[in-house]
Amino acid sequence: MKRPTIADIARRVGVSQGAVSYALNGRPGVSEATRVRVLKVAEELGWRPSVAARALTGASAGAVGLVLSRPPSVLGAEPFFMELFSGIETTLKPHSCALMLQMADDQDAEIEVYRRWWAEGRIDGAILVEVHVDDRRLPVLESLGMPAVVIGGLPGGAGSLPSVRSDESVPVHETVEYLAALGHRRFGRVAGLPHLVHTRVRDEAFAEACARLGLSDPVTLHTDYTGEEGARATRRLLSSSSRPTAIIYDNDIMAVAGLSVAQEMRLRVPDDLSLVAWDDSQLAQVVRPALTAVRRDVPALGAAAARHLLSLINGETLDDVETEPARLTPRGSTGALV
Amino acid sequence: MKRPTIADIARRVGVSQGAVSYALNGRPGVSEATRVRVLKVAEELGWRPSVAARALTGASAGAVGLVLSRPPSVLGAEPFFMELFSGIETTLKPHSCALMLQMADDQDAEIEVYRRWWAEGRIDGAILVEVHVDDRRLPVLESLGMPAVVIGGLPGGAGSLPSVRSDESVPVHETVEYLAALGHRRFGRVAGLPHLVHTRVRDEAFAEACARLGLSDPVTLHTDYTGEEGARATRRLLSSSSRPTAIIYDNDIMAVAGLSVAQEMRLRVPDDLSLVAWDDSQLAQVVRPALTAVRRDVPALGAAAARHLLSLINGETLDDVETEPARLTPRGSTGALV
Repeated sequence: MKRPTIADIARRVGVSQGAVSYALNGRPGVSEATRVRVLKVAEELGWRPSVAARALTGASAGAVGLVLSRPPSVLGAEPFFMELFSGIETTLKPHSCALMLQMADDQDAEIEVYRRWWAEGRIDGAILVEVHVDDRRLPVLESLGMPAVVIGGLPGGAGSLPSVRSDESVPVHETVEYLAALGHRRFGRVAGLPHLVHTRVRDEAFAEACARLGLSDPVTLHTDYTGEEGARATRRLLSSSSRPTAIIYDNDIMAVAGLSVAQEMRLRVPDDLSLVAWDDSQLAQVVRPALTAVRRDVPALGAAAARHLLSLINGETLDDVETEPARLTPRGSTGALV
Repeated sequence: MKRPTIADIARRVGVSQGAVSYALNGRPGVSEATRVRVLKVAEELGWRPSVAARALTGASAGAVGLVLSRPPSVLGAEPFFMELFSGIETTLKPHSCALMLQMADDQDAEIEVYRRWWAEGRIDGAILVEVHVDDRRLPVLESLGMPAVVIGGLPGGAGSLPSVRSDESVPVHETVEYLAALGHRRFGRVAGLPHLVHTRVRDEAFAEACARLGLSDPVTLHTDYTGEEGARATRRLLSSSSRPTAIIYDNDIMAVAGLSVAQEMRLRVPDDLSLVAWDDSQLAQVVRPALTAVRRDVPALGAAAARHLLSLINGETLDDVETEPARLTPRGSTGALV
């Protein structure tokens, strides 16, 4: 068995390949009866114009690309990406558009994949995630002229590439102010990778909010987003002489790990220690106490990016899209100092 | 800016398009100096033969397909899929092969996507996951003649399609025997979707193991794999008059949710209640007590499937691959009855 071809249809119908081609392309030269039979047999055999034929006539690739350069161990633990993909996919589905996914070791390898996919006509556009402080991908993608949407990205925009993002400093200020109002004075932050723009934005907002409220010596520790490093950073914070009474995490799995470290160290949450997760996947809600979290609608973020990319592929020009900031959702892991 | 073409190279070098074509295809008719210049400019412009041109010459699509028909809410919470993808991707990467991903509402929609991708020459093969008890995809993919590997699948094999799977009944027996040796007599199982083959295999093994050991009335409740349904099923089990002292879950997030329900209901884990998770992602290990889990190497499973698919695409014929059964990994959530 192979892919059905025009020759297969011709053989089955008992006409020439030329006649099949005329019939399929709606051109004159075949009788109406033959046209009907050809279309029926083509349908039966599951024949479709090949991606090659479609591409030669300038049709779309029917796919958008996304390359990730995170280690597999990190990806598995992070509900963020799967939720993002599901939002992207749900939006692409009615357009019969697929998501091409590839992993790469670093940004240079990532750039190579985008270049190749674009040059070979495999994708109509791309979605970029995890913008770096000095992101080497942006100028290259701009120069390729490929439709691309950046998720997150620089506060000042991502050059000529439209971005879909929210102001990440807003929920940081909201969270620090709330915890300060509950009497907390010593803060810790267990952050993600320091070279990512959104980490930088949150780091700066955290330092600013603490300074504005006169909170002394807030400490930020950076990690790779795994539960293991989240636990380790929490142990370090809680072992210091001026240990924090409130810790804000950059994802959910690290906050869950932090909750376990508090138990290990016989600290009561929230009486002795308040914890705040980030993203608010199911994970944050199934533990006890349920975690106070900065809630983002990740599938909606993916859907917005996919929608904008489809518009861009259709030739529309787009401004950056500012989505609603993530919002603090208090649950049992935060409280007034006892 | 558009994709670089042979015309762009010809213009830049100052030769005819025919000369560029000769040079790129290594055919005679151009001087060595011109050939070198053409190749240099092609490299500078990032020119690649288009997927269309490659497909017309019978070259590979450079992608394999995977269609999923689970609701987005479930996908986000399930580390399984992201770990599986990372294993697949890591194996495909050195072959410059991408993963085409699409979501579908049900198996019929899934079949349509595979048919279309194959007919259009978009993929070289497919990986099937989550085999149903009466799986409508298998006969269709067999009839298409597309290289395809089934992950999991029927104990008797997946028809003519090679499968990569392990015997899921082995760890069920191992777990029930271990807990029975610790003194447990009443067992509960919080299972996944009942129409999936691997759920059916585990259900039957659980009933068999309990019967063999003379354990009375083991109860299995089916869920959609979310933490929410896992919590609900746990509450139901623990509210019954003959409540179990040991519960085995079909994934990690439901076991974490079960641990929280035990806390809610003031049951001590493991003194009053033993809990066993399944998969053993980071999730199972960051909670306290850390969860005893049936450990699968999910990235290795994805890697094995991808490796076998690449062999199949290369024209090799393959038998089913039986991987090592998942193994019980005891931690703090299981113990002798007090």
